Amino acid sequence: MTAQTDHTTGTPGRTILSVDAMGGDQGPAVVVAGCDLSARKNPDIRFILHGPKAELEALVARRKTLQGRCEIRDATGVVTMDDKPSHVVRNGKDTSMWSAIESVRNGEATVAVSCGNTGALMALSMIRLRKLPGVNRPAIAVLYPSINPQGFNVMLDVGADVRADADDLVRFALMGMSYARNAIDLPRPRVGLLNVGTEEHKGRTELKEAYDLIRDQQDAAGFEFVGFVEGGDISGDRADVIVTDGFTGNVAIKTGEGTASLVGTRLREAFRFSPLSRLASVLAYPSLRRLSKRVDPRRVNGGVFLGLNGTVVKSHGSADATGVSAAIKLAARLSEIQFTDKLAARVAAVAPTEGPTE
Amino acid sequence: MTAQTDHTTGTPGRTILSVDAMGGDQGPAVVVAGCDLSARKNPDIRFILHGPKAELEALVARRKTLQGRCEIRDATGVVTMDDKPSHVVRNGKDTSMWSAIESVRNGEATVAVSCGNTGALMALSMIRLRKLPGVNRPAIAVLYPSINPQGFNVMLDVGADVRADADDLVRFALMGMSYARNAIDLPRPRVGLLNVGTEEHKGRTELKEAYDLIRDQQDAAGFEFVGFVEGGDISGDRADVIVTDGFTGNVAIKTGEGTASLVGTRLREAFRFSPLSRLASVLAYPSLRRLSKRVDPRRVNGGVFLGLNGTVVKSHGSADATGVSAAIKLAARLSEIQFTDKLAARVAAVAPTEGPTE
Repeated sequence: MTAQTDHTTGTPGRTILSVDAMGGDQGPAVVVAGCDLSARKNPDIRFILHGPKAELEALVARRKTLQGRCEIRDATGVVTMDDKPSHVVRNGKDTSMWSAIESVRNGEATVAVSCGNTGALMALSMIRLRKLPGVNRPAIAVLYPSINPQGFNVMLDVGADVRADADDLVRFALMGMSYARNAIDLPRPRVGLLNVGTEEHKGRTELKEAYDLIRDQQDAAGFEFVGFVEGGDISGDRADVIVTDGFTGNVAIKTGEGTASLVGTRLREAFRFSPLSRLASVLAYPSLRRLSKRVDPRRVNGGVFLGLNGTVVKSHGSADATGVSAAIKLAARLSEIQFTDKLAARVAAVAPTEGPTE
Repeated sequence: MTAQTDHTTGTPGRTILSVDAMGGDQGPAVVVAGCDLSARKNPDIRFILHGPKAELEALVARRKTLQGRCEIRDATGVVTMDDKPSHVVRNGKDTSMWSAIESVRNGEATVAVSCGNTGALMALSMIRLRKLPGVNRPAIAVLYPSINPQGFNVMLDVGADVRADADDLVRFALMGMSYARNAIDLPRPRVGLLNVGTEEHKGRTELKEAYDLIRDQQDAAGFEFVGFVEGGDISGDRADVIVTDGFTGNVAIKTGEGTASLVGTRLREAFRFSPLSRLASVLAYPSLRRLSKRVDPRRVNGGVFLGLNGTVVKSHGSADATGVSAAIKLAARLSEIQFTDKLAARVAAVAPTEGPTE
């Protein structure tokens, strides 16, 4: 527990991020390119890059902006997408992922970024960083495109664990609220609990129990509980934070992404249909580009692991440089506002059933 | 059980559908208009219409195509969207919904159609029609737009019950397979079990158990089991039938619908952005119309209740005449092919744990 104390004091004007350069589908060149993009926009960021030293040094040497802003930690092992989390926890000490988490554990950085295997990253984060006092299950939160003015809703858990009981769901509400307040500037977020209907009598038992527990927290914690919400509200404007278990949340966001992709495919087909529609598509191109920018998942790339002594941002495995840069931007923001400490204080202040035993 | 025997023998060239004219958001005029649309396209359909006699007579009198093809059953009560299912089961004998189910129960029709309250419709269907031998939980199946050649995947359960154990999931696989084979002409449907990853070791315990049970049925039942699928596969081409519990399924399809609607909203905004984009939208209009036809939920309107002695088609509460007509078209098809009997034979043939006690 002592190793975590350092990162409570950030140095103003200096944001150090721990970046796992390996494990993404597109290799370390894309990760370094993403660091470069972010470094150009934000002069305060420094990086600790984890991976094979020679390879990373060569990649960094080509990027002028990164000179003097990257420290490289040699790690020869790579966690692949097929590696079982339990295997990585037992045998992964030499991997870039382990090394990236370690920099947060020992206080050199407050936030880690990785494009690697989600299950392994969560398992390593739990084992090495440990859970915050009062948290039984950590959660992965994402920003999902919505019709709300801020353009996104916070949704959690989207896959840290396939289970969540009523107590876990209350913690998810508090963590999601803290994330919405700090990451997207909503002073009093509206929190909804995902169910199959909005009536109070509907749904599973643990949801009815969680309903009462979350409602009881809203005034002390400073959020508005809007009650049960449905799948359509994930992209809607009834709530800013959508709370659910990791099984339902994971299926829901993947269904939404798949459906958006289907609509895109059909849209392209519709425009290819005839000479007139092909002409229309040329004229419509700027409009369609504007649309695709607004719903582009790369712009909000990054699931955030909440409930640990340290914050971990999981970028999409298939992220390109733009995607990696979006994840780094989010990580920098969370580091700058000392998010880990704020979240810890929030969860500890209202933890009703567990003491500070960990 | 004796009342159900009649509907095993359909009269060729004569399809009698039991239609609940009340309970939809838009009132009986839209339901009658939907019947009219279907009657024009299919000369074999006859209707038993349930609702307030005088009102329905006046609506039918205005429709030439419906003359001599509608029998009206007076029912003065209406099930509203806010009525609790348990209340309707106890006190709903005078409602048009109850009356519509009764026509299937007594063999006058093999399929009922309603735009009303889903929970009440399922509760009444279970109580009055009873479950098929071997079925513990009925399921609601929908057709979800996909990139498969047939344009849709079958997905179930999307909300009959919030729970499903491994045995239920096997029955859902068999019922979904039978529905895909009979309603959308797939001789050997590919069945997938919804999970948070495609690896065999992932997910909840009951899913791993269901995985083995479904795999063991595939050869005898004539489907191909593709194993675990993810949310993105609901609109994808890895499977034709997606099996899940009613909680996850309900959240998933509502998330998908909400996301598609968000993309539509953003598309309209993109086209309103500037004079040039407004011009482009005029030229693109036929293409966009073609797109909207392909993904229009009204064209595949109708959740089907599977696992009962009789088939019930649930139309969207907000359906217009086009939507009601789509639900009736589906109901007519299921009636013509004597779907209830085929489904019953399928489930009974492979029911491993229950005898024909019901």
